[in-house]
Amino acid sequence: MWDRLLELFLRRLVRDGTLTLTLPSGRSFRVGRGAPEYAVRLTDPSLPRRLVLSPEMGLGEGYMDGTLLIEGDDLKGFMAFLIRNARDGLPLWHGATTRLRTWLRIARQWNPAPRARRNVAHHYDLSSKLYDLFLDADRQYSCAYFARPDMSLEEAQLAKKRHIAGKLLLKPGMRVLDIGCGWGGLALTLAREHGARVVGVTLSEEQLKLARERARKAGLEDRVQFHLMDYRQVEGPFDRIVSVGMFEHVGVPHYREYFAKVRDLLTEDGVALIHTIGRSSPPGATSPWIDKYIFPGGYVPALSEVMAAVEKEDLYADDIEVWRLHYAETLRHWHDRFVAREDEARALYDERFCRMWRYYLVAAELTFRLNRQVVFQIQLSKAQEAVPLTRDYLYPADREQRIGHAAE
Amino acid sequence: MWDRLLELFLRRLVRDGTLTLTLPSGRSFRVGRGAPEYAVRLTDPSLPRRLVLSPEMGLGEGYMDGTLLIEGDDLKGFMAFLIRNARDGLPLWHGATTRLRTWLRIARQWNPAPRARRNVAHHYDLSSKLYDLFLDADRQYSCAYFARPDMSLEEAQLAKKRHIAGKLLLKPGMRVLDIGCGWGGLALTLAREHGARVVGVTLSEEQLKLARERARKAGLEDRVQFHLMDYRQVEGPFDRIVSVGMFEHVGVPHYREYFAKVRDLLTEDGVALIHTIGRSSPPGATSPWIDKYIFPGGYVPALSEVMAAVEKEDLYADDIEVWRLHYAETLRHWHDRFVAREDEARALYDERFCRMWRYYLVAAELTFRLNRQVVFQIQLSKAQEAVPLTRDYLYPADREQRIGHAAE
Repeated sequence: MWDRLLELFLRRLVRDGTLTLTLPSGRSFRVGRGAPEYAVRLTDPSLPRRLVLSPEMGLGEGYMDGTLLIEGDDLKGFMAFLIRNARDGLPLWHGATTRLRTWLRIARQWNPAPRARRNVAHHYDLSSKLYDLFLDADRQYSCAYFARPDMSLEEAQLAKKRHIAGKLLLKPGMRVLDIGCGWGGLALTLAREHGARVVGVTLSEEQLKLARERARKAGLEDRVQFHLMDYRQVEGPFDRIVSVGMFEHVGVPHYREYFAKVRDLLTEDGVALIHTIGRSSPPGATSPWIDKYIFPGGYVPALSEVMAAVEKEDLYADDIEVWRLHYAETLRHWHDRFVAREDEARALYDERFCRMWRYYLVAAELTFRLNRQVVFQIQLSKAQEAVPLTRDYLYPADREQRIGHAAE
Repeated sequence: MWDRLLELFLRRLVRDGTLTLTLPSGRSFRVGRGAPEYAVRLTDPSLPRRLVLSPEMGLGEGYMDGTLLIEGDDLKGFMAFLIRNARDGLPLWHGATTRLRTWLRIARQWNPAPRARRNVAHHYDLSSKLYDLFLDADRQYSCAYFARPDMSLEEAQLAKKRHIAGKLLLKPGMRVLDIGCGWGGLALTLAREHGARVVGVTLSEEQLKLARERARKAGLEDRVQFHLMDYRQVEGPFDRIVSVGMFEHVGVPHYREYFAKVRDLLTEDGVALIHTIGRSSPPGATSPWIDKYIFPGGYVPALSEVMAAVEKEDLYADDIEVWRLHYAETLRHWHDRFVAREDEARALYDERFCRMWRYYLVAAELTFRLNRQVVFQIQLSKAQEAVPLTRDYLYPADREQRIGHAAE
């Protein structure tokens, strides 16, 4: 029965290009027409059922387990082919289950401190060596800013940090809070280049350890402190707050709490910059595979969801920049670096982990390239004059030179 | 009874500064403490009741009718004093009525084409001579852009048009739709400075007449056409769509219809720029006085309301600029120009009209200065690469020169 249902499902799904599928039973069928052509073989008898009931989960797990084999192993091409065909929604009952999951996101993302810590540990406490394999030297694990299209990943990550520093309007001696500081790269940059006094908080012990070590080595321990702390426990005030790639872990039911905390921690003329992945589409649900294997409790918000909370918490949104494709490029770099050093990853973990990681990087890149995912940089303040009344200050006439400087 | 209730109401309201009120009966009372001090006299026996039941309406009508007299006639100072005191919400049942009006906005703003036309005629078909008294020479009846704080109104309006043209990424020959074209100033500028072919639509016959006359005089009739037409009737496609100060008249129940129309009219690589007043606070209600006397059916949206519709209609928001205080400055200019030529306005209309207009300009300025009102410029596209991936193109290194050029 499941073989038949899977065939029916794929006949409805594939309109653009051809897919030849070989079932675990050995039987094959073709769906769709024309180029591109993909051939996939399933070797686990449970996969047809799992693919019908939860296509994203079945695909991700089948790929990880090596029981869903793509001829030529062109994962990126095959997933792009699926995303293009799924653009008008999945056939059968999947529209209804997605709507259900959208409603259930409120429960799934309920995120008290102990759960927040477990969710963070799941991902960010992976071996520090793993992140070395694909991130830039400063370990920026968030979207880079390709101020020029030909920038290297290293340059684009530095350009990102400087763009953020610009939006923070830093002056020497200012107290800055970095919520979700990762391995400390941004905090150390703000202290070194702008004389800020930075407090960084993370829930990852691995990140904390390395961040502290880096502060010591850089001789910046007097100006940069790192703590293992939930943002809800932080005490202020701060002149500036920055949060890069952390809001994705806050959870929809906590958005008001998050912005209330930002407001309470900020001085009256303070400025905050929230940098988060966003969706250019209505509120939705996290992919179940991503939620299970990569970012438990994670969620990519629509701007309407974020702004509803910002408005209620009496903050001005002074500027909202929407980065399109920068993260697709960032992920392409990460993917290519990871693939080039996959043997080292295999030595750290195992083959299944490597396939999982590759699947994650490819799926994420394509979501930015093809599926309406973007990055929001939302600049916030309590007072409307805390930020200049035009955005010229972000684009000084000599910026080409400053960007060139990033290449050092 | 109403005298007593008004006193109770004002005792709760006024905490910061002193108000001496003389009732129609001749009795006086003082509320609040310290500076600033204001003295107000009511001469219409119905005013205490009306002020208690609907403070904004009572205040506006009392001022218009000359039955609410402010000592020294310092309307701006007195209103600023009231707004500051009302910041934590009005006492008594006014919180509940505001919430009720927030819900009812959906019905109040139901805006089929014939009603839209009546609403527009109410304001924009006022004598063309009236608008000459306070607008700049190009009749820009929307927020100016003070690219430098010392700009004149004329310069700042030109800077606004050029900033918008920049966001539209115009090339010669492009087909541009201007929804709510006013007296045609922006459309003519885009044709003259950028070689665009522009269609402007308005629902005001007075605006249409003057806009066509100006196109003829400028010799731009072959490139700029104006029509008396509801935006829902327009047929495309267009490479670019611009809409400045019109979205405030669309009505919350029509937001999806509006953005669906924008999407349908745009070419696949098209770009739209929606410029609208916005509120940096949760969805609310229009002041009943403004709704009755100035902009029937008008509404200032929160970004969460706008974005919910944009997301559902499959458009990318590429950039969202939030102008703070530019409109307060614009309105200050308009107010001062109007006051300087109030005798001419009195000759066109009457004393009550002049008091109404002055009240409108003052209330609007203060709402931007003190009450969380801003301007949103939302740049939209169907394709994520329709707009450059960084915002540098808006801030060319030689922009000082270009702005200087505005002073011609």
